[in-house]
Amino acid sequence: MRLVLGSQSPARLNVLRQAGIDPVVRVSGVDEDAVAAALTDPRPAELVTALAEAKAHAVVEALAGELPTELLKEAVVIGCDSMLSINGRMVGKPGTPEVARARWQEMAGKTGELLTGHAILRLSQGVVDRTASGAETTTVRFGTPSDRELDAYIATGEPLAVAGGFTLDGMGGWFVDGIDGDHSSVIGISLPLTRRLLAEVGVSVIDLWS
Amino acid sequence: MRLVLGSQSPARLNVLRQAGIDPVVRVSGVDEDAVAAALTDPRPAELVTALAEAKAHAVVEALAGELPTELLKEAVVIGCDSMLSINGRMVGKPGTPEVARARWQEMAGKTGELLTGHAILRLSQGVVDRTASGAETTTVRFGTPSDRELDAYIATGEPLAVAGGFTLDGMGGWFVDGIDGDHSSVIGISLPLTRRLLAEVGVSVIDLWS
Repeated sequence: MRLVLGSQSPARLNVLRQAGIDPVVRVSGVDEDAVAAALTDPRPAELVTALAEAKAHAVVEALAGELPTELLKEAVVIGCDSMLSINGRMVGKPGTPEVARARWQEMAGKTGELLTGHAILRLSQGVVDRTASGAETTTVRFGTPSDRELDAYIATGEPLAVAGGFTLDGMGGWFVDGIDGDHSSVIGISLPLTRRLLAEVGVSVIDLWS
Repeated sequence: MRLVLGSQSPARLNVLRQAGIDPVVRVSGVDEDAVAAALTDPRPAELVTALAEAKAHAVVEALAGELPTELLKEAVVIGCDSMLSINGRMVGKPGTPEVARARWQEMAGKTGELLTGHAILRLSQGVVDRTASGAETTTVRFGTPSDRELDAYIATGEPLAVAGGFTLDGMGGWFVDGIDGDHSSVIGISLPLTRRLLAEVGVSVIDLWS
């Protein structure tokens, strides 16, 4: 039984490796706007769950197009999606230094809600036979970087490419005073939620340990 | 300016490296029982702070015994100590599989308080000229591993050698449902507390980034 991680995030891969699993990584493109548009006024948890499901299904389709592999016989595929909600607004990756600065000026000293959705598809003999999905919400209490600290942090480039413009497991960790919830969820893959979803499809996490 | 980490914990070193600092590691033995015995009925936060201070001072003494190094000119030394409080009792490393199992049977489904103390000594021209210390308390909500999961976790050896018999950043992460506080503090070195203590001795964390 192998775990297939449907994400190219090095942070998610690192969380899994530190936790004893060396997954196969397979990423497949999903039109996230189309997935979101198909939902009527979704709650944030519904949105991240739907996106995680779409990503996991896209990976299974891509796997089916590969030459027959051992993977298709017995595997679980996990799809993941994360978003930060600040002042009731969902925000993604800042992309530019200007947006990262504006985001931090809004977040500093406040709290945000980090939502992470996961979908698990269990494959047996090439067919998805069991599925489970769900979402976790974690409160993040942001610190207040000084102007000089914020300049230096933005100059590293780190905040531009990550959901919400911060990391817990990188240099952003200096500027997060605390969380209430699951820290691996904030990094992008919730270990306790993944364990529960795996159990729902009849897999114990310890059977995936390498 | 270099950071000297007065701890042989690979988890602490990893937190710092992921957060952009590559510290010099210097460890020096401290008689922890003697430090504790010198305190009258200390609160847990006082105890971990006193132990962190003793460790930091021991490292400075050891450094002073080395040949004159660049380190002694301009550096900050950090000492760290962590303990878990469960049901009002302070617990350390289980050491044996039997103790790890009993500990988990006590913790499963409950909460504990993880205390982390830090002491920072700023060295200028070989002399400690500024100091700061403090402690963080983080609530840890333990999950409930099945008997089979607990057997497998103990068999990895991981819980035997870590304070409280669990990790957040290793395989133990599967069995922690969440925390309320700073996750790096639970791993053993609190980034936000370290940043505040560095500021107290006049050092910005960004000046230590490599």
